[in-house]
Amino acid sequence: MARTDFGGIACSIARSAAIVGDPWALLVVRDVAVGLHRFDEIQRDLGVATNVLSDRLQRLVSAEVLRKDRYERHPDRFEYRLTDKGRDLMPALLALMAWGDRWESGAEGPPLLVRHKDCDHITQPVVVCDRCGEQLTTGSVDYRPGSGGRIAPGTALIANVLKR
Amino acid sequence: MARTDFGGIACSIARSAAIVGDPWALLVVRDVAVGLHRFDEIQRDLGVATNVLSDRLQRLVSAEVLRKDRYERHPDRFEYRLTDKGRDLMPALLALMAWGDRWESGAEGPPLLVRHKDCDHITQPVVVCDRCGEQLTTGSVDYRPGSGGRIAPGTALIANVLKR
Repeated sequence: MARTDFGGIACSIARSAAIVGDPWALLVVRDVAVGLHRFDEIQRDLGVATNVLSDRLQRLVSAEVLRKDRYERHPDRFEYRLTDKGRDLMPALLALMAWGDRWESGAEGPPLLVRHKDCDHITQPVVVCDRCGEQLTTGSVDYRPGSGGRIAPGTALIANVLKR
Repeated sequence: MARTDFGGIACSIARSAAIVGDPWALLVVRDVAVGLHRFDEIQRDLGVATNVLSDRLQRLVSAEVLRKDRYERHPDRFEYRLTDKGRDLMPALLALMAWGDRWESGAEGPPLLVRHKDCDHITQPVVVCDRCGEQLTTGSVDYRPGSGGRIAPGTALIANVLKR
């Protein structure tokens, strides 16, 4: 049985993936974050088919990652801006970008460097524990049941995790 | 013109997305990371069609995120393990999961809590600057050209960023 309602799986990776687990969606969020706000700008930048771009923008607006603002009337023209939820997604995208930099750049090196304006250094985004500040690794974490962790079809993982 | 060779775009988000910008791929990595290593276990956990799972496992092996180890002969049986590259992806997935926890959990709360074994606290993974330790936000970073940032069709973003 195939299932495609990822948002319905009681797992925050699945729910996030339902929104941004798509290359075009990620690239649209990236483009809006760096300052491309209009359909035509994003379309030209990505070389994406207009119907695909329309679909992704609409999904991202309905997921409240982007909002659509009218900036001109007669005719109405719109631009896309990150919402608070969309802005909050960028750190995860920076972590994903850093992974791509480390593993997919090849001999050429990273395409883009990230500068942290507050300390004025080129930064490597790292994922740390908010309690002790140490970097989190695959081996340094395990999992506990959360209040939203109902055991139901499609949530077998949670049962598996809790058995360990 | 549609383009689907995301890995060819000079952007590490695009390159990462070419590998894991797919809900099933993300969920397979998650499952392997928490200890499900065999095709049947992952298939049962995710309720995913076997052809889809075969495809995603094969892609993740060829991207060197997973490796396929034989654990039994006659008949040969295999299991999937994270490579170093796959383990290095988990922090970004934890950041994405934390975003899902914050924005998609609803009143029920997060399905799973992440415990940092080193400090023995339930942790919120946060993305920080490796130089100063401060949290990175959309507004606190900008971008500089990297050595791999050739200006070419499909890399218009970089030109855009550098104009700012």
